[in-house]
Amino acid sequence: MKLTILGCHSATPKVTAHPTAQVLEIKGHLFLIDCGEGTQVQLRRTKVKFSRIRHIFISHLHGDHFFGLIGLISTFRLLGREANLHIYGPKGIKEAITLQLKLGNSWTNYPLLFHELDGNEPEIIFEDEKVSVETIPLKHRVYTNGFLFREKPGERKLILKAAQKVKIDKSLFSKIKQGFDVENEAGEIISNAILTKDPDPSKSYAYCSDTSYYPKIVKQIEGVDVLYHESTFLDHHHELAEKTKHSTSKEAATIAKKAQVGRLILGHYSGRYGDLEDFRKEAKEIFENVELAEDGKTFEL
Amino acid sequence: MKLTILGCHSATPKVTAHPTAQVLEIKGHLFLIDCGEGTQVQLRRTKVKFSRIRHIFISHLHGDHFFGLIGLISTFRLLGREANLHIYGPKGIKEAITLQLKLGNSWTNYPLLFHELDGNEPEIIFEDEKVSVETIPLKHRVYTNGFLFREKPGERKLILKAAQKVKIDKSLFSKIKQGFDVENEAGEIISNAILTKDPDPSKSYAYCSDTSYYPKIVKQIEGVDVLYHESTFLDHHHELAEKTKHSTSKEAATIAKKAQVGRLILGHYSGRYGDLEDFRKEAKEIFENVELAEDGKTFEL
Repeated sequence: MKLTILGCHSATPKVTAHPTAQVLEIKGHLFLIDCGEGTQVQLRRTKVKFSRIRHIFISHLHGDHFFGLIGLISTFRLLGREANLHIYGPKGIKEAITLQLKLGNSWTNYPLLFHELDGNEPEIIFEDEKVSVETIPLKHRVYTNGFLFREKPGERKLILKAAQKVKIDKSLFSKIKQGFDVENEAGEIISNAILTKDPDPSKSYAYCSDTSYYPKIVKQIEGVDVLYHESTFLDHHHELAEKTKHSTSKEAATIAKKAQVGRLILGHYSGRYGDLEDFRKEAKEIFENVELAEDGKTFEL
Repeated sequence: MKLTILGCHSATPKVTAHPTAQVLEIKGHLFLIDCGEGTQVQLRRTKVKFSRIRHIFISHLHGDHFFGLIGLISTFRLLGREANLHIYGPKGIKEAITLQLKLGNSWTNYPLLFHELDGNEPEIIFEDEKVSVETIPLKHRVYTNGFLFREKPGERKLILKAAQKVKIDKSLFSKIKQGFDVENEAGEIISNAILTKDPDPSKSYAYCSDTSYYPKIVKQIEGVDVLYHESTFLDHHHELAEKTKHSTSKEAATIAKKAQVGRLILGHYSGRYGDLEDFRKEAKEIFENVELAEDGKTFEL
C-alpha cells in the first residue's frame, strides 16, 4: 500500500501549496481521493501513471477538493482513454460534471460512471476480491464523506521447501495457498499447517477530510493502520476550527488515540501558518506516531 | 497597454505548459481573457495584482479556456473581495458557475455579474470613457468569440512652455487639453494649435482564439496594433487544423497580413511540436512582425 500526496493544503491553490488530492495504490488499484484544481498537473509532476486510475472518490463539493475533476476527466478524453472511470461523490456531482461536458460539446469517449452518495451511515461503495471501500460520514459545512480502504486477507503463503520435502505435485500449490490439506505423491494427506504460513496482515487506510472534531467516527476506524485526518488549524485557533467545521491538530491526534490507529498523517493545513512542524508538535503531545503530509511526498504504508 | 501571457498552450495542462489565459492592462483596467485550469496560480506566479481584475472575458466553453474560472471566483470569495466581478462569455456559463457555487454552498460575498453572449455579429459588450470591448465572432467547434479591445483617443497634450510663454492661467489647462482655444492674461485669444500636440495614438488589441482560418474577421480587425491569433498547428498538419477547427501558423499570418495589423502574436500551440520557433518561421514567410507567446511573458504594446 502506497500513498502519494498530490496536495494537502486547504482553500486557495498557490504556487507551492496544492489543494487536496492523493493517490492510494492498494492491491493493484490506483485510487484517486479528492481532486482539487491542478491535480492533473500534480499527477504528471509526481509521475503517477494516471491512466491506471479507474476510481475517483470525492469527499465533498468544496472547490479545494473537487475543482480539478472536470479537467482530469477532459484530459482522459483527449488522451484517448477507453477504460471505465467510476466517480464516487456527493449527490450533485454528476450534474456539475455533465453540464460542463455538455456546454463544451465534449462528452467523453470512454464510459464515465457516477455513484452519487447521500447516505448518513457508513456503506460499502466499492468491493472486489482484494479490497473494499466504505464511506465514513463526516461532519462539515456541506455533506461530506471520508473513505475507509481495507485490503482483504490474501492467500496463505506456501513454504516451498516443506512442500518439496513431502513431495507434493506443483499442480496442488494453488489449493494449498487457499488453505486446503492435500495428498502427496505417496498418497498421504498432508496438513495445510505444515505447508503454509499466515498471509501478510491486511492493511487499512482511513481518509478523513474535511471534518469537525467528530468522535462518532472512532468506532468505525478503530485499529486502522493509517489515518489521514485533516488538521486545518492549531489549537489556539480552535474557535475558528469550530466555526468553520474543521479540526485542530490536537483534535486529529485525539481521534487517532481514541481509535488506536497505527499511524496518523496530518494535512489540509490552513495557509496562515509559517511552520508546519507546529502541527506535528501539537499532535505528538497526544499521539506519538504522527507524520506530516507534504505535496509530492510518498508514504509506503 | 501591457499583455501578460499566463498560458498559451492548447488542450491538457502540463507542468510547463499552461492552458490559455492572459491579462491585458489597458488604461487602468486589468482585463482577464480566458481562464484555463491553474490560471489563479499563474496570476500569483506572474505577480499580477489580480484583485484588480473586474472583467473576465471567456471566448468559449472548452476546458482549456474555462476550467480555471470557478476556482478564481471561489478564491476571490476566500480573499474577502467586495468589488463587482463581471463575467462575459457564452450562454450557459452562468449556469455552470452558479451550479458549482450552489453545490459547495459557497455563494460569493461580492456581486458576480454575468453577461451571456449568443450573438453572431460583432457587438460592444463593455464601454467606458477610456476603452471599448467588442466581440469578434469566430468559427470553432462550439460558439466562440474573440475580443477587440480599443483605447479611446485621450486628451490633447499640453505644451507647457508654449502656454507659459503666452501667459495662460493654469486653471485653463484642462480646457486646453480638451481642444479649446483660450484667452490669455492679456485678453488675447490663443489658438489651441500652438498650445497642444496630438494625443498618443489610441491602441487596439484583437484576441482571436480558438478559430478556424476565418477571413470574415479581417474587416473588423483591420489595422489593429496587435493581433493575438491562435496557431494550434503547423502547415503540414493543415488537414488536422481544418478538422478540429483550428488554424495553422501560416493561416494566422495570412489573417495578419490581410488585416494589415501592426504585430502578430502566435499562441495556443498543440503539444505535439518540439520547437516553437517553427511557428515563427512559418508565419514570417507571410507576415514579418511576428512574435511567439510564452507562458509568463509580458508584451509592452
